[in-house]
Amino acid sequence: MFLYDEIVDRALREDLGTGDLSTLIIPEDYLGEAKLYAKEAGIVCGIPLVEKVFKKVNSNIEIYSNVKDGDVVFPGMLVMVVKGTLAGILQSERTALNFLQHLSGISTYTRQLVDLVQDLGVKVVDTRKTMPGMRLLQKYAVRIGGGQNHRFGLYDAVMLKDNHLAAVGGLKEAVQQVKNKVGHTVKIEVECETLEQVKEALECGVDIIMLDNMSLEDMRAAVKLINHQSIVEASGGITAESIRAIAQTGVDIISVGRLTHSVKSIDFSLVIDDQKPSIQKHIATIK
Amino acid sequence: MFLYDEIVDRALREDLGTGDLSTLIIPEDYLGEAKLYAKEAGIVCGIPLVEKVFKKVNSNIEIYSNVKDGDVVFPGMLVMVVKGTLAGILQSERTALNFLQHLSGISTYTRQLVDLVQDLGVKVVDTRKTMPGMRLLQKYAVRIGGGQNHRFGLYDAVMLKDNHLAAVGGLKEAVQQVKNKVGHTVKIEVECETLEQVKEALECGVDIIMLDNMSLEDMRAAVKLINHQSIVEASGGITAESIRAIAQTGVDIISVGRLTHSVKSIDFSLVIDDQKPSIQKHIATIK
Amino acid sequence: MFLYDEIVDRALREDLGTGDLSTLIIPEDYLGEAKLYAKEAGIVCGIPLVEKVFKKVNSNIEIYSNVKDGDVVFPGMLVMVVKGTLAGILQSERTALNFLQHLSGISTYTRQLVDLVQDLGVKVVDTRKTMPGMRLLQKYAVRIGGGQNHRFGLYDAVMLKDNHLAAVGGLKEAVQQVKNKVGHTVKIEVECETLEQVKEALECGVDIIMLDNMSLEDMRAAVKLINHQSIVEASGGITAESIRAIAQTGVDIISVGRLTHSVKSIDFSLVIDDQKPSIQKHIATIK
Amino acid sequence: MFLYDEIVDRALREDLGTGDLSTLIIPEDYLGEAKLYAKEAGIVCGIPLVEKVFKKVNSNIEIYSNVKDGDVVFPGMLVMVVKGTLAGILQSERTALNFLQHLSGISTYTRQLVDLVQDLGVKVVDTRKTMPGMRLLQKYAVRIGGGQNHRFGLYDAVMLKDNHLAAVGGLKEAVQQVKNKVGHTVKIEVECETLEQVKEALECGVDIIMLDNMSLEDMRAAVKLINHQSIVEASGGITAESIRAIAQTGVDIISVGRLTHSVKSIDFSLVIDDQKPSIQKHIATIK
Amino acid sequence: MFLYDEIVDRALREDLGTGDLSTLIIPEDYLGEAKLYAKEAGIVCGIPLVEKVFKKVNSNIEIYSNVKDGDVVFPGMLVMVVKGTLAGILQSERTALNFLQHLSGISTYTRQLVDLVQDLGVKVVDTRKTMPGMRLLQKYAVRIGGGQNHRFGLYDAVMLKDNHLAAVGGLKEAVQQVKNKVGHTVKIEVECETLEQVKEALECGVDIIMLDNMSLEDMRAAVKLINHQSIVEASGGITAESIRAIAQTGVDIISVGRLTHSVKSIDFSLVIDDQKPSIQKHIATIK
Amino acid sequence: MFLYDEIVDRALREDLGTGDLSTLIIPEDYLGEAKLYAKEAGIVCGIPLVEKVFKKVNSNIEIYSNVKDGDVVFPGMLVMVVKGTLAGILQSERTALNFLQHLSGISTYTRQLVDLVQDLGVKVVDTRKTMPGMRLLQKYAVRIGGGQNHRFGLYDAVMLKDNHLAAVGGLKEAVQQVKNKVGHTVKIEVECETLEQVKEALECGVDIIMLDNMSLEDMRAAVKLINHQSIVEASGGITAESIRAIAQTGVDIISVGRLTHSVKSIDFSLVIDDQKPSIQKHIATIK
Repeated sequence: MFLYDEIVDRALREDLGTGDLSTLIIPEDYLGEAKLYAKEAGIVCGIPLVEKVFKKVNSNIEIYSNVKDGDVVFPGMLVMVVKGTLAGILQSERTALNFLQHLSGISTYTRQLVDLVQDLGVKVVDTRKTMPGMRLLQKYAVRIGGGQNHRFGLYDAVMLKDNHLAAVGGLKEAVQQVKNKVGHTVKIEVECETLEQVKEALECGVDIIMLDNMSLEDMRAAVKLINHQSIVEASGGITAESIRAIAQTGVDIISVGRLTHSVKSIDFSLVIDDQKPSIQKHIATIK
Repeated sequence: MFLYDEIVDRALREDLGTGDLSTLIIPEDYLGEAKLYAKEAGIVCGIPLVEKVFKKVNSNIEIYSNVKDGDVVFPGMLVMVVKGTLAGILQSERTALNFLQHLSGISTYTRQLVDLVQDLGVKVVDTRKTMPGMRLLQKYAVRIGGGQNHRFGLYDAVMLKDNHLAAVGGLKEAVQQVKNKVGHTVKIEVECETLEQVKEALECGVDIIMLDNMSLEDMRAAVKLINHQSIVEASGGITAESIRAIAQTGVDIISVGRLTHSVKSIDFSLVIDDQKPSIQKHIATIK
Repeated sequence: MFLYDEIVDRALREDLGTGDLSTLIIPEDYLGEAKLYAKEAGIVCGIPLVEKVFKKVNSNIEIYSNVKDGDVVFPGMLVMVVKGTLAGILQSERTALNFLQHLSGISTYTRQLVDLVQDLGVKVVDTRKTMPGMRLLQKYAVRIGGGQNHRFGLYDAVMLKDNHLAAVGGLKEAVQQVKNKVGHTVKIEVECETLEQVKEALECGVDIIMLDNMSLEDMRAAVKLINHQSIVEASGGITAESIRAIAQTGVDIISVGRLTHSVKSIDFSLVIDDQKPSIQKHIATIK
Repeated sequence: MFLYDEIVDRALREDLGTGDLSTLIIPEDYLGEAKLYAKEAGIVCGIPLVEKVFKKVNSNIEIYSNVKDGDVVFPGMLVMVVKGTLAGILQSERTALNFLQHLSGISTYTRQLVDLVQDLGVKVVDTRKTMPGMRLLQKYAVRIGGGQNHRFGLYDAVMLKDNHLAAVGGLKEAVQQVKNKVGHTVKIEVECETLEQVKEALECGVDIIMLDNMSLEDMRAAVKLINHQSIVEASGGITAESIRAIAQTGVDIISVGRLTHSVKSIDFSLVIDDQKPSIQKHIATIK
Repeated sequence: MFLYDEIVDRALREDLGTGDLSTLIIPEDYLGEAKLYAKEAGIVCGIPLVEKVFKKVNSNIEIYSNVKDGDVVFPGMLVMVVKGTLAGILQSERTALNFLQHLSGISTYTRQLVDLVQDLGVKVVDTRKTMPGMRLLQKYAVRIGGGQNHRFGLYDAVMLKDNHLAAVGGLKEAVQQVKNKVGHTVKIEVECETLEQVKEALECGVDIIMLDNMSLEDMRAAVKLINHQSIVEASGGITAESIRAIAQTGVDIISVGRLTHSVKSIDFSLVIDDQKPSIQKHIATIK
Repeated sequence: MFLYDEIVDRALREDLGTGDLSTLIIPEDYLGEAKLYAKEAGIVCGIPLVEKVFKKVNSNIEIYSNVKDGDVVFPGMLVMVVKGTLAGILQSERTALNFLQHLSGISTYTRQLVDLVQDLGVKVVDTRKTMPGMRLLQKYAVRIGGGQNHRFGLYDAVMLKDNHLAAVGGLKEAVQQVKNKVGHTVKIEVECETLEQVKEALECGVDIIMLDNMSLEDMRAAVKLINHQSIVEASGGITAESIRAIAQTGVDIISVGRLTHSVKSIDFSLVIDDQKPSIQKHIATIK
């Protein structure tokens, strides 16, 4: 969880700013209890982040849950019970839900796509079309939904496109130069728009060949041509409607930008049952 | 633009990580030119961020555009020309587009809602249901789309809900306490689910009364009851389908979570025309 | 307390730099006990920060106190007992006292002004004339002293001055434009130097009218003119000598820059009774 | 100026927060001109910071001035002319003035004390009783006022007090241990409350002996005793009233906490002459 | 160069702290010129960092050089001329040289190893045994010396060791699980200490087999066994003395921890020719 | 340990990046135990950092050790036992060892030099020739090895070289100006290359005279000349071979750049004994 501290801090600062004005009237020793319910069906994702948000605002807040990331939830299902300082719960609520609703939206949509093609042995992966600052969490949500991750950025795999090739005089030259410059632990992917390009990529011995916006017919031809010598990835505007037909072409991997760039969130709500008496041992708190 | 430096830096670091492997093969003195086209109709938002992204990666990159945030774009429309170091353009591309596509999605949807109710004198505003770390930019996109902003966080306006009231013994007591604690520049809003609560809020002299998930009938009654003594805000699962009927109840403000929590991005693409010869005067660059 | 971590870290780094040279000679397992006394009469403010400073330097340091922020202290009064690693107490001392002395100075002066006008129902508020980096804490100290806060910055309320008006062609035009641009949760204040301006502001229906450096006579006239249709704020070089006369004009709010820009600190001292034997369970500490 | 970027950024973020609401109505291509006047007599300090503030908000703002830090100003004196984007000038105004007023307050008071004792060859220095986060700038202002700096923190000189001595068994032992632990570039100062302690410190060959809250008589005796073998520093509640008598005892250095812990700011004001027509070449700016 | 800003800032802050005391006596308008000479033979690396250091301290400093990273230098060779503010040059000197000397040390040693095996078609790569905070730059220096980079961290390639295998029940199970969890762009490497393990890894179809501290004989056997089905990497205490014999076993890659964990720096010196008259147009600078 | 949090965080982020891929297959509730052995003889340094690294990755990891920084280790000696979550131990291993190996390398070499001259009463100190970002820790390691620290940066002592002198017209003028500008707690050192310069420095009453690259003969003459009126420091390319002869000239201090710029690390290894069953009480962890 070390890796997610920064984004949680940032989200809390964004919402708390110079301090919550509305809870100034709530005595700091009032305890509360809240129940988090799902309001839509989906795959839940973000429970550890919800916990982290509450704990950062007030370390006395405790979370109780039998649900874990990746579980199915249905409308009205109790997902979590939150106990602790009432003011702290109120201050954390929106930030916690913002994480949960967005990430669950991603996991849910990912699972839908994964389920549509799961009998075909094809893998659904994400892209770099992510929300600025949220890529790490969005890619986590894709994994929770049953998908896998494409590269995390420009630094952990090579992807050669026309632009790269033109600059150095063709694909063979480009692949050779890349192999001389990047280490042996890095995979090389080439984006192809035609079967001609696929053939050339194949001859260069690249690790992954991406079929960019190809027709189903061309994809089938490409899969046959490649014949398991490289991993075959299909890409380009893929939706729930089109994914099964694409998977049936025999590609190994389908990458879907929509998983992270146009997410419909899953709705959750936090219902607070406050209760008054309490004993707080802190000397004082700045409000 | 001072305020947006941090989010742009973060987005670039997220994508560049330890450095772009694919452009290692592109000589650092190759110049390129790219054209940015819209692929869908919508309201464009994020052009200054696109410029900032390119400039941060390489200050020699120049942007030329006759389009500004808030303008309408149509599929195939040329939005911007980018000139400068080819490697720099390639390294910036995805990050720049991620900002542009998401923010334009928000501005476009906001404008749709605003246009649906504009003859009724009602204002469309956002909520705190935003993407962690992106609230400032998302709220900017709402303004560009013709909407207005609700509060930016817990710190710039008071919103009292049942939870706050129960803790201090009722609305009157709560409003009085708030007035004693927060300054005279802060507005006080109360969330009401019933007409009873509306009446009580009205008696307390609050600035804004929010009608939370009320029926159209109750909203009309509330508007009549309030009679311009407070600002009236409608809220709760509002969509393009329901917004006009709600506006016709006579409320002043309609707040829509969907503007920022379930955004469909608008597609743009960057087409690169690379060109080789160039003159770079730097001593050297680390690649 | 989440919001104050950054300023405490910064203050400690400023003082500790590359490490305290003087405590290098104190064995790390020596425990100490210190007593914090007030040396002047005043309103104490900053106790939670003092605790935070000590805890950050060494989490084994414990604080015991019956005094809380806002309490009156007198010369020689025991405010707090501090127990734990002697070196840690010595390293924290100056930083902890710097917070306490400055904030108590603000709370004390605020209380003096508040008490001078409290029977007149007027509120004493601060301004944006604060110490760079310390605004949040200074405004907290004002609240502890019984004052309220004016806006926290340029982002949480609108204040229109001559400069804004001239740029858009007069007050009416300016107020209308502002209402179109900022959300319904934001209050609008106008700074007026003459009764003419007050009348114009009144006609525009602004939330707050600020009487800037007006004579007592003009203030009385303005209060009468405004007649509770807007909140009336008096501002400009106000001191303990002048505040009561101003309050008697009938204004609602008096804002005082001096509360935060020219603070006389309240003196406290930490007296250390060291004691030697101890048992520390850490493996080792870098000194 | 590299060192002051962080504090200026912090101050601007504190004031600008999510953006200046009031300047939203000012067209971004309006230029303005402002004149900065002194409203009190004093020593000006902070002009480079004022410039930095304006430049950070908008790099097109230019500063013209014949006055430099350390110069005397009188009420009504023109200190600086500021030209550039009107909105940028308005957004920077308060932050710029907050630096200038506080630092000039320090330089002015420092100069007063320095002038009171300047014929006696004694030096006036500051302490670590500074505003959290502002120490570096406050110590700069002391130098501009003609004073010198005591140590910047716990890391750049050793100061031994009773607490340190008790822990290791007396002054001689403590000084010996310190010399074994800290490098040869570090000076060692010992705080003495009695002439007995002064004698002991002298025997240990320390670099500086601090006379803490001693009577004038004891100070004279200490100076005689020390006889230029160590630097002699007087400290403890020193004011403009007491400083000359202390200087006459023959001490080398007088350290004054009041220089930085209870500062009365010097008043300046920025008068803006806006002017409308302008040509801005940026594509767009986020407002 | 965007990626290296943070480390350069950090290095400068480490050295400048609260400001350079020694250059306080140098008038800010004195210009200087310095010549940077190599004092040892080697491969130079870090010239863009040297430029960045000087520019950050004072943007008026200019660098002139015909030498670029990767070039050979010999004792006494002029590497660079630096012109600009004398104080700025002095403040930057040590930080600039610290980068240059360390990175050139790495590039030089890398080149020695690369040259020893270059006719054998084997590649020399680094490891994760790097200096905390300097990995990115150290790996850059390895590339400049003609080496390639192993993975940058735990996140960009999989390396399975005994510890991972035991936890999931053997290599086959581990590789299968990894393939289900990590994306298709990630390579999988397995560390083998025996020929038995090599056989098993080969059957699992992993991308890279690392021979950990094997005898030359076993390495030869492993290379034969693997027969180009996986990339073969040799690792474990390799030095200039042993590298050629290892390369002759037929491995593809040799990874050398010593490249980055025990670096002998290459000596450079900066000789300053100061010259006095100058014209500076800034208003003032804080010193 | 407060001061070392930042470097440890940075080192962990550098290695963990977007998350350890290899431990994705290890169930989060598997516990492990690891033993840390020395593989070379030396002085151990960095044990508290090792502990901090493990604790940051997972606070349930416990460290057991009887060895502390400064102790002698021999090949095969058990230095530490680590117990806790297996995945956490694996994720921390490399980062922990990188600190330990480098710092122990410094302490070991420092001790070698210290032991070579210890009967001569001379002190061995470091320089500012350090690894960017690691100076604080490297200087700590020098102290652990029995050395002392020279100044930490440009801010905690004055060092005047030819360049400074030329700019102000000679040494006397320079020393006088420095004394007017820097505080009484700062020592002044002058770098001398000839006996002439030594004489001049002596007349100015500086605190430390550095003999820069002088012959043994000149050093002896300088020591005689200075005759304990200033501290005498020898500097310039000093190694284990030359240090004793230099110490015999009678200098007080020998500064050695090699202590920190060309460090040979000391090898340690972590051997992991994993064990499966476990009970973890966390709700969930993001992997």
